Amino acid sequence: MNDQTHPKSARMGGRAARRAARAAKLADHLRPIRPGLTGGAFRPLTEAQMRRIHTAALELLETVGLADAPASGIAALTAAGAELGADGRLRFPPALIEETIAGANREITLCGRDPAHDLHLGGSRVHYGTAGAAVHMVDVDGRSYRDSTLQDLHDAARIADRLDNIHFVQRPMVPRDIPDPFEMDINTVYACVSGTRKHIGTSFTEGAFVGPALEMLHLVAGGEEAWRARPFVSNTNCFVVPPMKFATESCLVMEECIRGGMPVLLLSAGQAGATAPASIAGAIVQATAECLAGLVYVNAIRPGHPAIFGTWPFVSDLRTGAMSGGSGEQALLTAGCAQMHGFYDLPGGAAAGIADAKLPDMQAGWEQMCSNVMAGLSGLNMVYEAAGMHASLLGFCHESLILGDDLIGQALRCVRGIEVTDENISVEVIREVCLEGPGHYLGTDQTLGLMQTDYVYPTLGDRSSPKEWEELGRPDLLARATARKEMILADRAPARLSAEIDREIRRRLPIRLPT
Amino acid sequence: MNDQTHPKSARMGGRAARRAARAAKLADHLRPIRPGLTGGAFRPLTEAQMRRIHTAALELLETVGLADAPASGIAALTAAGAELGADGRLRFPPALIEETIAGANREITLCGRDPAHDLHLGGSRVHYGTAGAAVHMVDVDGRSYRDSTLQDLHDAARIADRLDNIHFVQRPMVPRDIPDPFEMDINTVYACVSGTRKHIGTSFTEGAFVGPALEMLHLVAGGEEAWRARPFVSNTNCFVVPPMKFATESCLVMEECIRGGMPVLLLSAGQAGATAPASIAGAIVQATAECLAGLVYVNAIRPGHPAIFGTWPFVSDLRTGAMSGGSGEQALLTAGCAQMHGFYDLPGGAAAGIADAKLPDMQAGWEQMCSNVMAGLSGLNMVYEAAGMHASLLGFCHESLILGDDLIGQALRCVRGIEVTDENISVEVIREVCLEGPGHYLGTDQTLGLMQTDYVYPTLGDRSSPKEWEELGRPDLLARATARKEMILADRAPARLSAEIDREIRRRLPIRLPT
Repeated sequence: MNDQTHPKSARMGGRAARRAARAAKLADHLRPIRPGLTGGAFRPLTEAQMRRIHTAALELLETVGLADAPASGIAALTAAGAELGADGRLRFPPALIEETIAGANREITLCGRDPAHDLHLGGSRVHYGTAGAAVHMVDVDGRSYRDSTLQDLHDAARIADRLDNIHFVQRPMVPRDIPDPFEMDINTVYACVSGTRKHIGTSFTEGAFVGPALEMLHLVAGGEEAWRARPFVSNTNCFVVPPMKFATESCLVMEECIRGGMPVLLLSAGQAGATAPASIAGAIVQATAECLAGLVYVNAIRPGHPAIFGTWPFVSDLRTGAMSGGSGEQALLTAGCAQMHGFYDLPGGAAAGIADAKLPDMQAGWEQMCSNVMAGLSGLNMVYEAAGMHASLLGFCHESLILGDDLIGQALRCVRGIEVTDENISVEVIREVCLEGPGHYLGTDQTLGLMQTDYVYPTLGDRSSPKEWEELGRPDLLARATARKEMILADRAPARLSAEIDREIRRRLPIRLPT
Repeated sequence: MNDQTHPKSARMGGRAARRAARAAKLADHLRPIRPGLTGGAFRPLTEAQMRRIHTAALELLETVGLADAPASGIAALTAAGAELGADGRLRFPPALIEETIAGANREITLCGRDPAHDLHLGGSRVHYGTAGAAVHMVDVDGRSYRDSTLQDLHDAARIADRLDNIHFVQRPMVPRDIPDPFEMDINTVYACVSGTRKHIGTSFTEGAFVGPALEMLHLVAGGEEAWRARPFVSNTNCFVVPPMKFATESCLVMEECIRGGMPVLLLSAGQAGATAPASIAGAIVQATAECLAGLVYVNAIRPGHPAIFGTWPFVSDLRTGAMSGGSGEQALLTAGCAQMHGFYDLPGGAAAGIADAKLPDMQAGWEQMCSNVMAGLSGLNMVYEAAGMHASLLGFCHESLILGDDLIGQALRCVRGIEVTDENISVEVIREVCLEGPGHYLGTDQTLGLMQTDYVYPTLGDRSSPKEWEELGRPDLLARATARKEMILADRAPARLSAEIDREIRRRLPIRLPT
């Protein structure tokens, strides 16, 4: 090549220069991906279709309404302007809905215990995390299912704490070894809080259990005031039993959480074809109507209380009636719901990343990516159940959670999208390479600069050539995930709670996780 | 429930009614997915950004141009209005480009040998198929790689012929057991044509090999006129060596194909960070410029000849320089290119569905889905390399091809999107279920109607519950794919070519595939 002595050759240093460039640590805002990247380039619904869904939801709220509100809810909602019918259903005049939307809290911060993990919901900013109520653990090595335990849950929190692309830790599974509902709820909070400094989501069986949980959270936060200033746990609240009925007990839980300063996820989890209409549009209409009712409820109790619009419609396999969270229909439902959150300009969340596959196999990969990337591209604020979920939410898998970090990293790169700038349009770079340069871009300044800021590299995803792969002994993806799991869990990092606080919590509450 | 004697109970027949409904065969236009569904809801580029990419491409064509055109190409292109510089590069005035775009063929039919498989390119209509030049076969059972053979290629064509969601069969791998380039090209065509009645794509090493291939195709078609009326093979033509150089020999192949009536895929396969700019926008600019030059070339030889705008930029892993077809950056490149095809209103194609993973494991699943679904959502007419591709195009896998049918089926469901109609908005259904009906949607008319027309069911994808899965003996996804492969290949269906035509082809040409 005739440019060996070209003054520019110093910057064409090839492999060594690339290595050096990669060694420098990037500032957070320069990282190629991060929590809160803005999505929204995927819009399966037109403006007119969204308006139509909204109108249909208003019509349902006005004419069908919701049954089964508790007495306290009926009092608050009728005081706000809802009407209680002779059939016991609360109906909502359109004006009440519109006023509620206008006045609702639209920029919510979900705090981490560590402020570095704060999530700023709103707009089309996308965050991924765990969620669910799996009852099984997937044993990858034995290719089998067993009951999930408190230790499994704690380990999941510890693993998620270490994964860059898992932005929050909503409880993904139920500790089956703690049968008492009160102990289960308390230990669930403890297992998560002692495992991660990221934002946590959890649910409560009864309103009476919220108080003791808050007692623990006050201890962890350093007092009630500190907790209320930065609540790092939110309440996943299944406030409806679709179609169009309030879940009486969950509503009471919600009221307690609101009073305790805990953000609420208004979770409407209908299942298209079973507890919601089988049509995608119809399932979105129903979920939207239910969440609007929930939003009125929250704001009737405490105006402006942080609430996440949780339209989580699921999908049935209509051949069997069983849930199919891994389907394309699910991905569309979730993306359509994300657009409705944008339509209302309300912070929202929905489910994605669920596999129907029982194991972290190829099917799991395509199912988890399909809905995760579409959720992100549609600008969903909170992508729940995004990693580790198998068997349509019945099974959770630590290895899958770890691989999900790579999978979601790739989805986030897609959410970030394509920038077009004076510089990266590259006319000058192309001209120089073609007319003056070496005829390739391997060592150009642009290439070296972009390799850190624009490209995402998987942690476990294998990009070796077949030859390298042979030489490496044909590494197995799941075995590598297990190895990483063991490395994370073997790390005796400083306990997440101080010994003093931990002792005090254990003195007051029946904590079952060993110290 | 109090509606046991309700007059509507007859239509709430549950499982039996659902089974009966499913037994009826649907007309093609009612199937939930089919070739040519319209995408375009995902738009990673704004109109202004696309215009800017176009302007940059025009500037490059005018000022940098392309080197290395063959003499015949120089003659045709200068006659059309391009300018040959003293540096041997052909430069293209913007007006020539704009005129070419305006006059190009924008609605192309890629014929199948069976007209039922015709693909009508244009708009944002999406089709998925195989492509590539893999040199290895992935042996799933042995978890290993070996050289690909002519029989592997033929088997791939036979398998693809049976998969509903593989809409065309571009040659995905190279028969390594046929070292002679002429014999390789001829046998490649034969192995595909004798394996499938879907549209076929192939490439030729030299212009001189096109004639004998056409001789074979005329025999298969029943004469030259019949071939020219419905050409069922297109030429995958790597007419450029990026950056910005014509591939001299491939251009001569292209001229032969155009004269022979064979549609041309103008394939620009730069690699971002190596033979194309590392920035996504820059790689799209360069690919767009190169394909515009190719389009001028085709139309200079024969105005209106069917050509596919094949902006296929690939991605480097900038740490190693190796290709990473499974990355999020790849998915964005392909989706951005699809938008540029729409910007020009030209039939286009690009690569998606490539796995970096060596085996059909979870990584392969998420990589293949990511780019496949984003390509479809962006409205790419021809999604090439959509199934079976591993190790960044170095390996092809029959089992993965078969699983790809499920994966692409799901992607197509997402491409179809969300319909919003008077009926499926479901206000009446919801009202009835909540106020009069059984409180669920399991057996409603709507549910029974939509289960066939709106829902896609995987063939091998497993949706069983953990309990059912245990009872079924924990079926392994790959073992099931192997079983389906063996079933397809064991089926001694009528030979794809008549014995008479086959004999005549073998008399004239050195066919190496056993009869």
